[in-house]
Amino acid sequence: MQRIKLTISYDGTNFNGYQVQPDERTVQSELEKALERIHKGKLVKVTASGRTDRFVHAVGQVIHFDTDLSIPPDKWGRALNTLLPEDILVLDAEQVAADFHARFDAVRKEYRYKINLGLLPDLFKRNFEYHYHYPLDVRKMKKAAAYLLGTHDFTSFSSAKSEAEDRIRTIYSIEIIEEKDAITFQFVGNGFLYNMVRILVGTLLEVGNGKRDPDSIQKLLEAKDRRLAGKTAPGHGLYLWRVEY
Amino acid sequence: MQRIKLTISYDGTNFNGYQVQPDERTVQSELEKALERIHKGKLVKVTASGRTDRFVHAVGQVIHFDTDLSIPPDKWGRALNTLLPEDILVLDAEQVAADFHARFDAVRKEYRYKINLGLLPDLFKRNFEYHYHYPLDVRKMKKAAAYLLGTHDFTSFSSAKSEAEDRIRTIYSIEIIEEKDAITFQFVGNGFLYNMVRILVGTLLEVGNGKRDPDSIQKLLEAKDRRLAGKTAPGHGLYLWRVEY
Repeated sequence: MQRIKLTISYDGTNFNGYQVQPDERTVQSELEKALERIHKGKLVKVTASGRTDRFVHAVGQVIHFDTDLSIPPDKWGRALNTLLPEDILVLDAEQVAADFHARFDAVRKEYRYKINLGLLPDLFKRNFEYHYHYPLDVRKMKKAAAYLLGTHDFTSFSSAKSEAEDRIRTIYSIEIIEEKDAITFQFVGNGFLYNMVRILVGTLLEVGNGKRDPDSIQKLLEAKDRRLAGKTAPGHGLYLWRVEY
Repeated sequence: MQRIKLTISYDGTNFNGYQVQPDERTVQSELEKALERIHKGKLVKVTASGRTDRFVHAVGQVIHFDTDLSIPPDKWGRALNTLLPEDILVLDAEQVAADFHARFDAVRKEYRYKINLGLLPDLFKRNFEYHYHYPLDVRKMKKAAAYLLGTHDFTSFSSAKSEAEDRIRTIYSIEIIEEKDAITFQFVGNGFLYNMVRILVGTLLEVGNGKRDPDSIQKLLEAKDRRLAGKTAPGHGLYLWRVEY
């Protein structure tokens, strides 16, 4: 038996999220279907670093699974890419220790959120960035983001549906990168709660367009009340970018 | 009655080409459906600068139609974008002379063809560029392209299905732009035959990967035989970029 770690990318547009759900097309179910074919009908369960929601993309999601096949680790990518649909791509495969765990061993995660500020949406990226045509004061957003750095209880920034009991997380960095008519947010932390990145983005946008004061973020963290934070930004602008172990 | 000229963009992925066909989703049929709604059930026929094939995109296709509605020209874009599906976008609308013709008055057209040369396809651009992982000698392709400039009979580079009687066209410029692991071809000419850009690209790629000599292009033009040219490159890398009048 060997444990294989895969780094995978997917276009979230046509999936109903990462996690298996009955009668839904999900990333996990497509992965398990392909692995089942390679294992001649035997079910092989995969474990991811975490789930992603409907429409959310991944550039570097990490999963692991166990196999009794003696396929060399570097051949798994090609074998799976032959069987997987075109919106999932295995980027890397390696053998790991039998106790490696894609979720529990993750020490840093990076998410990015892409926004198109142009007058019109970019037709060819409409599923890959959020079109938000409002003036944004990036300086204010950076000031607000500074309050979010470090270790906090992020209850205000997590979905009411979150099942996590411990809502304390550490954000190591938030970068807001400006390009012509576009902005990318980069969040690096030790972990993120359900919908947390999208609520952070939605709240920072409200700071950027003047609806919310940058200094209000501190009180917002202390309030531990989801209703006081901004809207959840749409899923299709979000990418799980990288998971580190 | 006023004649309106529209500049439109579309993502060709989910259309069966530009032109109306029974029971198929096409760009023209979606445009006419939206115009019919605006005209309260009256059929309004649109005329394009030319058709595009299945999977082919447009950044600046031009069409015209006649209307008896007194909508100000600058309002047509918003009115249509509200009704059109998300893979068609009206970029510009203006009133033109009653004898303006989107097809017959076009004097220059630009097409671009995007190629990803990387080891793996870019998942997020898989419908918007051709993944071609072979080494290419750009210097050789540029040498070959020089033979194509100017006025020639392009029968060798047009589909056998082409109905055009006059196959003489003028290519004003061919640019081959290199980026990291990517190449874009830009063709500007007074017009292009059916499949011509895709056959030009397919042939230039065969020059680039050494299968065909750059100097063979001259003989190929003279032969006027489609079977002697290269493969037709796939539609999803091609963009109708601009039409000038």
